[in-house]
Amino acid sequence: MKQTSIPPYVHEIDGEMWLIEDDRDNLKVSYRIKEMIYTAQSPFQHIMIVDTYDFGRMLVLDGVVQSTEQDGYIYNEMITHVPLHIHPHPKKVLIIGGGDCGAAREVIKYKQVEELYFCEIDELVVHASKEHLTGVSAGLEDERVRYLFADGIQYMKDHKNEFDVIIVDSSDPVGPATQLFEFDFYENVFHALKEDGLMVCQSESPLFYREVMENTYRSLQQLFPITKQYLAVVPTYPGGLWSFTLASKQYETFITPDFEQTTKYFNQEILQASFALPSFMKK
Amino acid sequence: MKQTSIPPYVHEIDGEMWLIEDDRDNLKVSYRIKEMIYTAQSPFQHIMIVDTYDFGRMLVLDGVVQSTEQDGYIYNEMITHVPLHIHPHPKKVLIIGGGDCGAAREVIKYKQVEELYFCEIDELVVHASKEHLTGVSAGLEDERVRYLFADGIQYMKDHKNEFDVIIVDSSDPVGPATQLFEFDFYENVFHALKEDGLMVCQSESPLFYREVMENTYRSLQQLFPITKQYLAVVPTYPGGLWSFTLASKQYETFITPDFEQTTKYFNQEILQASFALPSFMKK
Repeated sequence: MKQTSIPPYVHEIDGEMWLIEDDRDNLKVSYRIKEMIYTAQSPFQHIMIVDTYDFGRMLVLDGVVQSTEQDGYIYNEMITHVPLHIHPHPKKVLIIGGGDCGAAREVIKYKQVEELYFCEIDELVVHASKEHLTGVSAGLEDERVRYLFADGIQYMKDHKNEFDVIIVDSSDPVGPATQLFEFDFYENVFHALKEDGLMVCQSESPLFYREVMENTYRSLQQLFPITKQYLAVVPTYPGGLWSFTLASKQYETFITPDFEQTTKYFNQEILQASFALPSFMKK
Repeated sequence: MKQTSIPPYVHEIDGEMWLIEDDRDNLKVSYRIKEMIYTAQSPFQHIMIVDTYDFGRMLVLDGVVQSTEQDGYIYNEMITHVPLHIHPHPKKVLIIGGGDCGAAREVIKYKQVEELYFCEIDELVVHASKEHLTGVSAGLEDERVRYLFADGIQYMKDHKNEFDVIIVDSSDPVGPATQLFEFDFYENVFHALKEDGLMVCQSESPLFYREVMENTYRSLQQLFPITKQYLAVVPTYPGGLWSFTLASKQYETFITPDFEQTTKYFNQEILQASFALPSFMKK
């Protein structure tokens, strides 16, 4: 299924190649490309890895930037280290999505994690990332990782009372990820967690997709006794400011776990600070 | 000096007008324009105010977005409320730059401020903003504001031991603002402050202009006993994450001042959280 033709998101302007991210009607971001590394059409989406001048290599799905070597670690550290600094015994962890492998890489830095189930629907994204996006995915060779390559929606229906931590690392609520933002899915996540389990999901930009963020919070608040939102900066996502929603059955205080402290963004002060919300988000 | 022709930063594509911010070699951001509101060439720079779909009205200087109705308040609140939550008696405040009038508007929310000197080199930017960018500049009719329309570099050479708080709200270190990032200027700011005075300046993106940020910190650290950096998110600045540097002769603890609490981003938790720095900034 690999393509060699130039995908529609790549344009030649004055002899230079540019990736033009134009999924939004009113804002377009253009990245100058050093080299086209990989393109393929999977059964689920168009996959591209390009090397850019300012952000290094980038994973691009259906024309939308997902992760980059320059700033991908911020998102991946924040979606993993925050829940793993709250759950005191994260033995069995599940990641839904996260095909760039960056979240999985962070989770296995915790010695307490005995099994990491990695449920990404699109096998080709994982293979492409492991081969061509090593700045994000490297270091993931670990026998605790179980690759599933399955539909996270269905997987959640089939599993009950099994996981300590579930991390929903989805793309935007369009295409294959749409159902990962629906109440029924969150309800199944609730039941797939053990009685002291917790989950975290990316919940989009508080500036540009405020409705998605608010709906996520409201859905999870109906299911879990503890629901909180936190923020990080992701330069290559529109608006820069990005929200995550944490929903927990029992734990909410911060702990100091034993983990390989190689983070570039996350630290104890950032952990505390990420839960400080701007006034416009408190309403 | 007003122009009616279309400036070089505005392009017509498929019948739509787009502002293309292309000051950077490897990253271009394009904003769809609803309406061209104002363009002029001042003795210092090209000034433009456009109404855009996602960000409302925008002030654009030499093709670079400076402030928008949608997100300009984040920057303007963070460059003002942080120093004014540290200095306990800010009677005489100076703003250098800040032509969009947004920082000035925040400062006059403090009753303790008796005089606000507003030293912007380009009178035309202030007039254009007050007339056409009211979402950022409105509410500035206050008899405590003294407009100077002077060169901040020279103004700092001529004033000693005079101000409680100096806010350096400059544009990027290109064009008219270059000297506002140099050691000589900071030295003059030090001397223009009273013996318990403090200053704050915007110090660019920690991701894309790290050298500027680090140089600013090092210069101020040589002059002031207390130097700290803090962060905010500014979606329309490249990289989203933005740094500010605070340098103080005496005060460094947070206070709870009496001010008109109408902020949309800033609050006490954000104040604390903004000083938490990512691991890559701590080195």
